[in-house]
Amino acid sequence: MPDTQSEIEALLERRIEACRDKDIDKLMSIFAAEIVYFDVVPPLRFVGHDAVRDNFLRWFAEYDGPIRLATREAMIAAEDDVAFAHMLHEDSGNRNRPNGRGFWLRSTSCLRRREVGWRIVHEHISLPIDFRTGQVLLDLEP
Amino acid sequence: MPDTQSEIEALLERRIEACRDKDIDKLMSIFAAEIVYFDVVPPLRFVGHDAVRDNFLRWFAEYDGPIRLATREAMIAAEDDVAFAHMLHEDSGNRNRPNGRGFWLRSTSCLRRREVGWRIVHEHISLPIDFRTGQVLLDLEP
Repeated sequence: MPDTQSEIEALLERRIEACRDKDIDKLMSIFAAEIVYFDVVPPLRFVGHDAVRDNFLRWFAEYDGPIRLATREAMIAAEDDVAFAHMLHEDSGNRNRPNGRGFWLRSTSCLRRREVGWRIVHEHISLPIDFRTGQVLLDLEP
Repeated sequence: MPDTQSEIEALLERRIEACRDKDIDKLMSIFAAEIVYFDVVPPLRFVGHDAVRDNFLRWFAEYDGPIRLATREAMIAAEDDVAFAHMLHEDSGNRNRPNGRGFWLRSTSCLRRREVGWRIVHEHISLPIDFRTGQVLLDLEP
């Protein structure tokens, strides 16, 4: 289903652009009202547009300038009204990391098609941890 | 589509049973050969049956006895041959945590229907972290 695939690709591209430009309205326009969001940071899940919006604004404020998310290993599956996509993102915005380097995130988006178009109803973003030390791992390469 | 929904529910139930019983063959039978797995632990992703199998065996070995995963807030979306599900799991197996308590994980499964039935082609399991300290957060409640 090449058309559906292209629609999802375009939505994911808008997501990257909206993060880069810190355009909160553009970013939120791709999420469903009932979004359930598992983010890198607590709580366990954000539920609903308002909670997710506030969390994105918090995230935007941590960067001095644009948020750059390079994408690698993206895979999309879509059928009729249900779709999912997963990928790796290199977050290389100007966040205050000690070594100034970017880091790789894992990203999964789950979508449903509504009358207004595709919307992300669930997203899961994470970093791996070292379970022995309890420390997040920011220096992993794909 | 209640039948599809029931099929996915049954598969997720088999997943929980296989973890509890540390039945690696039963567990692997629900994953597609090309599985891309984002786990709590490194690397960024495990690709393919063999890598995922080895990682599950490592995980099984960390528990003295059964692995108990309680499920909460499960949501399933399925259409024809594409489906996804997300939920919270309380991992309360007898792992050597200092306080002996369980902890809550976030879990996302993405599935495709094959001739042999539904298979998980992508799974994403994570814990939130405190970005200031870099420490994993094991004491969050839903």
